[in-house]
Amino acid sequence: MARQKKFLLTDEQIPRKWYNILAEMPNKPLPPLNPATKEPLTWQELAHIFPTECAKQELNTTDAWIDIPEEVYERYKYYRSTPLVRAHALEKALQTPAHIYFKNESTNPLGSHKINSALPQCYYCKQEGTTNVTTETGAGQWGAALSYAAKSFGLEAAVYQVKISMRQKPYRSSIMRTFGAAVTGSPSMSTRAGKDILTVNPTHSGSLGTAISEAVELAQTTPNCKYVLGSVLNHVALHQTIIGLEAEKQMEMAGEYPDMIIACFGGGSNFGGIAFPFMRHNLSGERHTEFIAAEPDSCPKLTRGKFRYDFGDEAGYTPLLPMFTLGHQFKPANIHAGGLRYHGAGMIVSQLLKDGMMRGMDIPQIESFEAGMLFARTEGIIPAPESCHAIAATIREAQRCKEQNEEKVILFNLSGHGLIDMGAYDMYINGDLQDFSISDEEINRNIAELDGQK
Amino acid sequence: MARQKKFLLTDEQIPRKWYNILAEMPNKPLPPLNPATKEPLTWQELAHIFPTECAKQELNTTDAWIDIPEEVYERYKYYRSTPLVRAHALEKALQTPAHIYFKNESTNPLGSHKINSALPQCYYCKQEGTTNVTTETGAGQWGAALSYAAKSFGLEAAVYQVKISMRQKPYRSSIMRTFGAAVTGSPSMSTRAGKDILTVNPTHSGSLGTAISEAVELAQTTPNCKYVLGSVLNHVALHQTIIGLEAEKQMEMAGEYPDMIIACFGGGSNFGGIAFPFMRHNLSGERHTEFIAAEPDSCPKLTRGKFRYDFGDEAGYTPLLPMFTLGHQFKPANIHAGGLRYHGAGMIVSQLLKDGMMRGMDIPQIESFEAGMLFARTEGIIPAPESCHAIAATIREAQRCKEQNEEKVILFNLSGHGLIDMGAYDMYINGDLQDFSISDEEINRNIAELDGQK
Repeated sequence: MARQKKFLLTDEQIPRKWYNILAEMPNKPLPPLNPATKEPLTWQELAHIFPTECAKQELNTTDAWIDIPEEVYERYKYYRSTPLVRAHALEKALQTPAHIYFKNESTNPLGSHKINSALPQCYYCKQEGTTNVTTETGAGQWGAALSYAAKSFGLEAAVYQVKISMRQKPYRSSIMRTFGAAVTGSPSMSTRAGKDILTVNPTHSGSLGTAISEAVELAQTTPNCKYVLGSVLNHVALHQTIIGLEAEKQMEMAGEYPDMIIACFGGGSNFGGIAFPFMRHNLSGERHTEFIAAEPDSCPKLTRGKFRYDFGDEAGYTPLLPMFTLGHQFKPANIHAGGLRYHGAGMIVSQLLKDGMMRGMDIPQIESFEAGMLFARTEGIIPAPESCHAIAATIREAQRCKEQNEEKVILFNLSGHGLIDMGAYDMYINGDLQDFSISDEEINRNIAELDGQK
Repeated sequence: MARQKKFLLTDEQIPRKWYNILAEMPNKPLPPLNPATKEPLTWQELAHIFPTECAKQELNTTDAWIDIPEEVYERYKYYRSTPLVRAHALEKALQTPAHIYFKNESTNPLGSHKINSALPQCYYCKQEGTTNVTTETGAGQWGAALSYAAKSFGLEAAVYQVKISMRQKPYRSSIMRTFGAAVTGSPSMSTRAGKDILTVNPTHSGSLGTAISEAVELAQTTPNCKYVLGSVLNHVALHQTIIGLEAEKQMEMAGEYPDMIIACFGGGSNFGGIAFPFMRHNLSGERHTEFIAAEPDSCPKLTRGKFRYDFGDEAGYTPLLPMFTLGHQFKPANIHAGGLRYHGAGMIVSQLLKDGMMRGMDIPQIESFEAGMLFARTEGIIPAPESCHAIAATIREAQRCKEQNEEKVILFNLSGHGLIDMGAYDMYINGDLQDFSISDEEINRNIAELDGQK
């Protein structure tokens, strides 16, 4: 009897609304603050740099369901639903009784989940008469998605890409240029923030924090230009809930419900995207799914960071956000999972972590690639270094299921493919990859600096 | 009213048989010949280097439908069906009345259609007790697919990759190594054939012809090792008919039937795959679809080659095959569409071309990338340089439809994505790509040499 391998929705079954967990959280996140006045920010203030509709969504604590605009839905249909896949071959290799499913966001045109938020953000810009958008990108998954979305809605895009990622994954810049974007390595000499960083440290290899500073500055100094962000913020996770809402229908087709949901974690966009729709059934008391965010052990804000108000960027241009953080001047090690090299966790996830609704799991770089290699050789898909963290966490849990003989249902999000990251796989195969450790002293020093600044 | 963008089959709707056009062609291809005796080859002779089941399929002129083995079907389910997509955005950009559909084989795990034949070939090897497989690859799409398929069935794989492609697309070798394959640039000093070529021309940049020679030699000199091929041969096109058989069902879902089917052409695997199932309705007189094979103008065997018995490889190790050819010692220009750099057309396609059942269309390199850029910016998928040829031919036809105000239905095969080929896109964007021309004299000289040899 043939086993069902994957589950897909028809165009008509693609969800027409996003799920806004903010409206249903018993404890809402603390508000973002204006760094000058320390007063809670209004959406009007946020709308100075963000698209107005995104600014409103960011602070919307009342509507649990938000309509997906028709023009965005039309474009979602280009590639959605993404497959929900039962990882039979991986299960067999692990000899685990666990049932492992993954949501395959790597089939999206630009190779990751990032397009799910790039499309609505560019749509709102277009609606609001904005002509230019600017953003940061690490590994380049977000920058690539944003470049395509901007082109699709007739906007001009300027992307600041973290310098070390640009060197590690040169093809990602090429992809952005293919879609007509201007791409600059960050830190650069093209902004005040970049110049300040490079003056102090001329060989700074960049981080999402430096790239955000530069993009925000460009938006503030360019006419008719808005800043768009690929993770961290509430409205980004909102758009990404399309992943979990689809997965919920698809798990139903599979006749199962996840005991455990796992995603890698940088700022929270793919984690929130797959987790929040399922978490609403935890909030209502119907279900007791466990949620695990897999982060690099060299950038461990969930497992070893502190809950503080902190800036979202290196230069301190953004609002102060309440989050688990390693300090906004934390310099992450040069791991290949560029999308996870960020010092803080989004506001919603930080609150959920405080409330014990989820947990973090830290994964060393080499373990992540071991997991990615096993996944590639069994399931035939080479995962992005970021997604390798989710796979490593899944393998740990599946092995625990084996030891304890538990037939748990695990669902993880395959946030993207690793075809642009083959240089990292080469290094792994050649034995040239290393792990990075970070001491408690370093974390405490960063946090103390932060506490001193405030 | 929402328009349907894409059409997918359920796991159960995936075809369970391949279509063997050989059984229904009114004029069968001439037989392959033993070069020593000039006698037609038997499947027993072919089985010396090919898997036995493939050797039988190669000469099977009686069975129009061949069962897909259960273990292959199980693996097809990992990624099939691939989407049939209506290219609304491309149509709009072209302002054409034509309806353009594409079969998106780029969503396959290794990024191209090649996996469709790699899986059955490795399955048959496994069934027959073979432990090692060897093959050639150009751009690396076939080598990557074969490496994964070999790993999936527990075989060891050795791949000879064309040297110029290895340099142009270094990530493809990394992908093959990720799946555990041994990868060698061709021509190499590891075989007699390679040494002979390099002795005469130490800077030879390789071609599919040189890589085939080396792989065949390795198979002949290694115990329990079979040679597998990614294109040209009848059994490869047979396996690829899964593409067209799915597309036939999906076009029915779309409520249309193609007036025109277009695919790029190297040896014929993706062209045959999408074309042959539809062509059976031409053979039966029911339909009159037009079939167009898009080849590079610098390697124009269909439009300017001659019909001859010729070797499939540079060194003359293979059987003599009846085909449209530029001569087996033809050295293709270093275009980025590595998969189309081959001197000859498969036997079935050569016969169909002779019989006027299809036509070739030659596309310059720069036009192919122009087409690929437009497709990326409209449909969000960066196509492989090979597939860009099919898109360029589609655009030509769609523009003709516009001029003549004809609402034709065009279906093309998007054989693969171009994410590993971003170096070529970079060159295009920077204005560094060039076209290559080939003179009639050069073609005639090659053919004359060929005629002299026989």
